[in-house]
Amino acid sequence: MSRPAHRRPEYHKINKDLFVLTYGALVAQLCKDYEKDEDVNKYLDKMGYGIGTRLVEDFLARSCVRRCHSYSEIIDIIAQVAFKMYLGITPSVTCNNSSRTEFSLILDKNPLVEFVEELPAGRSSLCYCNLLSGIIRGALEMVHLAADVTFLQDTLKGDRVTEIGITFLKKLDEKKYRRKK
Amino acid sequence: MSRPAHRRPEYHKINKDLFVLTYGALVAQLCKDYEKDEDVNKYLDKMGYGIGTRLVEDFLARSCVRRCHSYSEIIDIIAQVAFKMYLGITPSVTCNNSSRTEFSLILDKNPLVEFVEELPAGRSSLCYCNLLSGIIRGALEMVHLAADVTFLQDTLKGDRVTEIGITFLKKLDEKKYRRKK
Repeated sequence: MSRPAHRRPEYHKINKDLFVLTYGALVAQLCKDYEKDEDVNKYLDKMGYGIGTRLVEDFLARSCVRRCHSYSEIIDIIAQVAFKMYLGITPSVTCNNSSRTEFSLILDKNPLVEFVEELPAGRSSLCYCNLLSGIIRGALEMVHLAADVTFLQDTLKGDRVTEIGITFLKKLDEKKYRRKK
Repeated sequence: MSRPAHRRPEYHKINKDLFVLTYGALVAQLCKDYEKDEDVNKYLDKMGYGIGTRLVEDFLARSCVRRCHSYSEIIDIIAQVAFKMYLGITPSVTCNNSSRTEFSLILDKNPLVEFVEELPAGRSSLCYCNLLSGIIRGALEMVHLAADVTFLQDTLKGDRVTEIGITFLKKLDEKKYRRKK
């Protein structure tokens, strides 16, 4: 993560419901287009990836985050700064392995499904919020961090919370991400 | 417009860019699905209509607007309250006929096209923001106001501003919309 000082665009907010309902229309359209849930999930992830690659520059400019030392710090920024900025929520974070490369973001409330009572009929494998995994993956890739991002739990599938698993795929280049002294 | 006092849901805001880019993905998907611009425009309007019918209840609860006496008052509420609340902008309003049933909302800046440089190749008749017309039409219909809503100017088509025309189709039932004394 970098800290560009040259650009501070105006910070605009809009009403969440408009986004949530528009996202619902997008998922409904993809369900109409693709018979298999896996294909809908794939396209949502792909769209999200494209969005993430475009959002990240603005995010870095707006958030003024400092360079990170570790994956833990990166995950904390995603949870506490990015989720707060883009979705108005702050997921909790867990680390899932001793080498500290696997993490989970736990969302007690998921704003994207506020208007969704259940998955559409015959769509039990649909990963309704898969755009989010794509966005995270795309944004991380733009700062040279390869990661697998997948939904591990989903309230729409009966789970108590929504859990997004993020596994970093390479050892962090400590030299590259070391804070400048 | 009514003023329900029973419900004041929490007022949530999210970052606009996420919405704008997701909307772009929706339009791109529809362009992939439908060869004719007219069909894309129709589906955007139809989706918007569905969104408008769902947004309006929340809008009335959150905005606490009073009953309106005239179409002019209704247009002012759309411009000054609804657009501000949902898109963070306040269009200017013009009245286009002497019987005060035809109006325009003039948007100097259109947040929905911030990431769009031009219409996609071969899509010169695409009404990129047609979701908005559908939303306005759907929301008005839910408060028993039939209206035609169409884009009259569009910066993506070389116009200096974006102009949304709203024509109310019936004489306002003054008794129904008269403010209670």
